[in-house]
Formats: sequence, C-alpha cells, structure tokens
Amino acid sequence: MLKKIIIAVDAMGGDNSPEKVVKGVCLHSKNTQNAYYKIFGDLEKIEKMIPKSFSTSLYEIIHTKEEVKGTDSALSAAKRGKESSMWKAIDSVKNNESDIIISAGNTGALFVIAKLNFKMIENIDKPALSGLWPNKNGTNIVLDLGANIECNEKNLADFSLMGSALFKALFPDQSPKVALLNIGSEEIKGNEIIKNTYKKLSNQSNNIYEFKGYIEGNEMMSGNVNVIVTDGFTGNVALKTAEGTANFITGELKKAMTGSLMGKFLTALNINNLKKRLDPRLYNGAILLGLDSAVVKSHGSTDHIGFANSLELCVKIVSGNLIDKIKQSID
Amino acid sequence: MLKKIIIAVDAMGGDNSPEKVVKGVCLHSKNTQNAYYKIFGDLEKIEKMIPKSFSTSLYEIIHTKEEVKGTDSALSAAKRGKESSMWKAIDSVKNNESDIIISAGNTGALFVIAKLNFKMIENIDKPALSGLWPNKNGTNIVLDLGANIECNEKNLADFSLMGSALFKALFPDQSPKVALLNIGSEEIKGNEIIKNTYKKLSNQSNNIYEFKGYIEGNEMMSGNVNVIVTDGFTGNVALKTAEGTANFITGELKKAMTGSLMGKFLTALNINNLKKRLDPRLYNGAILLGLDSAVVKSHGSTDHIGFANSLELCVKIVSGNLIDKIKQSID
Repeated sequence: MLKKIIIAVDAMGGDNSPEKVVKGVCLHSKNTQNAYYKIFGDLEKIEKMIPKSFSTSLYEIIHTKEEVKGTDSALSAAKRGKESSMWKAIDSVKNNESDIIISAGNTGALFVIAKLNFKMIENIDKPALSGLWPNKNGTNIVLDLGANIECNEKNLADFSLMGSALFKALFPDQSPKVALLNIGSEEIKGNEIIKNTYKKLSNQSNNIYEFKGYIEGNEMMSGNVNVIVTDGFTGNVALKTAEGTANFITGELKKAMTGSLMGKFLTALNINNLKKRLDPRLYNGAILLGLDSAVVKSHGSTDHIGFANSLELCVKIVSGNLIDKIKQSID
Repeated sequence: MLKKIIIAVDAMGGDNSPEKVVKGVCLHSKNTQNAYYKIFGDLEKIEKMIPKSFSTSLYEIIHTKEEVKGTDSALSAAKRGKESSMWKAIDSVKNNESDIIISAGNTGALFVIAKLNFKMIENIDKPALSGLWPNKNGTNIVLDLGANIECNEKNLADFSLMGSALFKALFPDQSPKVALLNIGSEEIKGNEIIKNTYKKLSNQSNNIYEFKGYIEGNEMMSGNVNVIVTDGFTGNVALKTAEGTANFITGELKKAMTGSLMGKFLTALNINNLKKRLDPRLYNGAILLGLDSAVVKSHGSTDHIGFANSLELCVKIVSGNLIDKIKQSID
C-alpha cells in the first residue's frame, strides 16, 4: 500500500470558506487513494459540514481560534500570531507532521508566514510563484507570477531549474523546454538582465531542461515550450492580461450568441467542450518554489471543484518528489 | 469645402505590398471626402494596380528606387539612405508637403528614420508607441507598446498626456481616463518608478484627463479607463499576451465547433457578430507619439481592409489636431 500523503489544509481562507474547502476535500478524497487531510480551522463550523460518509480514517480536524483575513496586510497577519489556521497548517509541515500545505487565503500573508517558517533551499536566492497555464499541446509552467518585482540573472536561471523540476514532477513523461519571456521589436530586444540570462542559459549545459531561447507573449500558448521564465512584474501582468482577455472574449461571445434561440442552444453545446478545456479550475493552484517545502495557493475565488484540483496538485508535487528534484538540479 | 488631408503612404512595406496598400488606399478613398494620397514606391508596379475609376485628382505616385526590407536592421535601413519609399514619405512630411506618414513596413526602421527626420516635441524626453485596444465600452489607448524598455516617472507622466491627447483627437466626445498598469499582489505593489509616477499623477491637477490610479492586467478591457500607461517592455508583453490568448481561444473554439454540422453552421453565424467586434483590422495602426509629427505604423500582416482602417486613423489624427493637443498639454 502506498504511503499516505498528508496534506495540511488551511480551511479558513478564500471566498465561501470553510464550506468550499471541506467540499473540495470530500470531492478529492473520492478520486484518490493515498491522501490524508489535516484540516485546520474552526472545529464547530467544519464538523457540521463534513458528511457522515466521509471516513474519519481519512482526515482529522485541528481546531484553531484565529484566522487570517483577506483584508489583513501580510505583516499584520504574521503578527496576529501563531494561532491562525494558516500558521498552524504551515507549522504542521515544518514539524514533519504533514507533507505539504495548501491555502485559499491571503496570498501575501501565506508567503510571509511560509518564509518565516521554512528555510530557503540552499543556493536559491529568491522564491518564485509559479502557475499552470494551458497551451495547444498541454500545460505550461509560468514563473515568477508576482513574488519578485525585480530579478537578476541568477534568479531567472534558478527559476528555470525550479520550473523544470516542477514540470517534471507534474508531467513525468514529458521533457521541460524552457524559454525566457521577451519582447519582439528587433531594435530593443530585451534589457541587459534578460540578455545576460540568455547567455547564461545558452552556455550552461544541463540534463534538466532544453533551453529554447526567447519567447514573445503571443507564443506562450503555442505549445513549443512548457516552462516560461520571467520576472514577477512581467509574469503577473501577462497572467492577468490573459485572464482579462479570456473573460472579455467569453463575454463578447455571450453577447454574440443572443441572435437566435437555436443558435444559443447549439452554441452552448459546442462551447461546453471549449469550457472543459479552458476551465480555470483546471489550472487552479499557484506554487511557491524555493523554500524547503512547496506552498500551494488555491485561488481565493475558486469553488470546491477548483480546490479539489489544487489538492490533486499537492499530491502530484509530493509524489513527484519536487523538493528533491529542485535540490538535485541546483547542486 | 474641407481642406484635404495629405497622407504620405509608403507603399512598399509589409506583406503583399504594394498591392494591399494600393487596394487599401482605393477602399479608403471611397469612404472619405477629404484625403489626398501621396504614394511612394515602385511606379510601374503601383500604376498597374490602380483601377481606372480612381480619380487622379485624389492621388499621385512618387517613384522611389529603393525599399526597406523587413529583414533590414533599423540601422542598415537608415544607412541604405534617402532613396527608399519609407524615407521619401517621411521627408514629404518634414518638408510640409504631406500632413502625416503611414507605413506597413519594418517597425524599427520606420522609427529610426522618423527620429532622424522629425524633431522631438519640446519637453518630451522619449517617444512612445501607442495602440488601440478594445474594451467593453469602446476603445483603449495603450502606451508604450515597445519603444522604450525602461521608463522613468517623467516618461510615464508624458505618456499619460500624449495618450490622452491621442484619445481626445480620436474620440472628441469622450473624456480620457488614465490608469497605470501595475500588479496585484498587495505585498509588492509596483516598483519605485510606478509608485512615484502614481504620486506625481495624483498630485498634479490638469484639465486634460482624469487619473484613475492603478489598473491590473485583467481589468484592462473592463472599460473603466481608456488610456493605459506602462513602460515599453510590459506594454509589449501585455499586448502580445492578449493577442496570443485571443488566438488560442479562437483556435480552441474552432476545435470545439467540429461537433455537428448544424452546430458549426449556426455557431459560425453567431460568431460573425463577435468577429466584427474583435476584428484586429479594426484596431490596426500603432502611433508613434512624441515627435513633431505622428507616425502611423500599420501591422505588416494586415490586409487592404486593415490598411484602409489605419488610413482613417491618419485622417482622424490630423483633423483632431493631435500634435497641437500634445503641445498644449505639455506646456
């Protein structure tokens, strides 16, 4: 029998919590054999929500008195102290009682509390926030999505290795292909940091990933590469612009469909296929890389299905030995 | 009778030129009363393409021996000298024989040759490339899209004024609302330059535009603002990411439609409305701002319809007194 993967779940963060978290845990447990959930949060509230059919051999609830609010600043959340569900969940990983932490709560607070408790992996200077992003052939890892506004050559090279390790942990049958996000005008192809990183990655041979050079924003979803590296400012703008564009087109599409009833109906049928492919819940879960334990951040506004997907991401990260892979690649 | 607006047209740049340029000019002339076209390029080729119905009172052809290639570096194009269609067209504006220049050719070359020939507007330090971008309520101006990788507070403040002047020239009935593109994580809300620009724009009252603060990538198309200011690196990545996302969704939509023939047919009907709204040809034409004449760059890959739309952009820029508006706003 497989060793159970123990997930420390902060149940009190994000919209409609703890309900969506509890429902997400129940949904995930139906589709997996080897997860055990330590659920941190308000015992009374959580107990009420757990269906009787959910075996107590699969979970435990650890009561916490405090919770980090979405409106807390990262520092005030950290100062609020060690009694919050978020802190306790992280503590559980730190004490080797859990394998990985997940929260749908306050992003800034989660990262500050994680950094206070976990060590950086040796030789990594900055942690990076990585996300999943659809492409024509499958899935991209994109990092950094906002943990570091400014990055130097060493940081971007580290992100290439960490992103590749994550890709390999999640998709063991595929090979990481790294590209640097850059701009297209020939006149002004990138700043000095990007050019130097290009040289660095071109010259250093490794057996972790294949370096494919620069990529422009319009090629990110082409499927020619699968690990896209950039600084946190650019990555965040790119991610949000893609989200905004997708929402805009979906909105306009709905407007366009109001022509005929039959058209509405059939278009809806056809678009269901599209929705399945592009459902943001499929790509839910950003991963903070660089600490000696991965930290998974579920989108605050996702529902229980999205939360269940990011629980599966936790399972894959642990069973794919992500942290060992990163450590080996950095050596 | 209205004074004719004289457009200097570089006929030799971009895919399928001069044919698409000539066709674009003919199409545009049918829908406008007050444009006159000075067409710079290969006389023999162009003459063959012009229909007999196109009155010679509406245009002239100025034969040029050289053309800038898409593969030329900006500097080698400039060194190629003053005999190219691009240089001659710019020269025509410099000598007050034309009101504005348009080209679908090599972007880098166009900007270098324009900078060599036109003066900067007083008190503007850097020119910016601005583009049109759909939003829920109409159209955004976004700048800089790639002319300057790094920008300081003064540059971004100048872009706010120039972008607002352009907005007002194109949409005289609407009011410019400026926002700075930034990232969303509270922890790390922007770099020092953006924060300082925010302060600068908040403190300086003006009657040119309303300053609406920061905007994130996902809100760019919400329609709450209409002039979006950023540095050229971020702007270029955002623009290209939006393009890539739109293409990806369109591609996936086509795949999703292959379900049923009837579905295909009806979806196609419905999507025509959408296409009309999102047709990139509607937004064709980037404008280099900051020189004492606007320079309009048509997308190299657009067709004659897209080119005709950017000719109309030229008419609006001249009749909207863009350059005067910029000069007044900078004073």
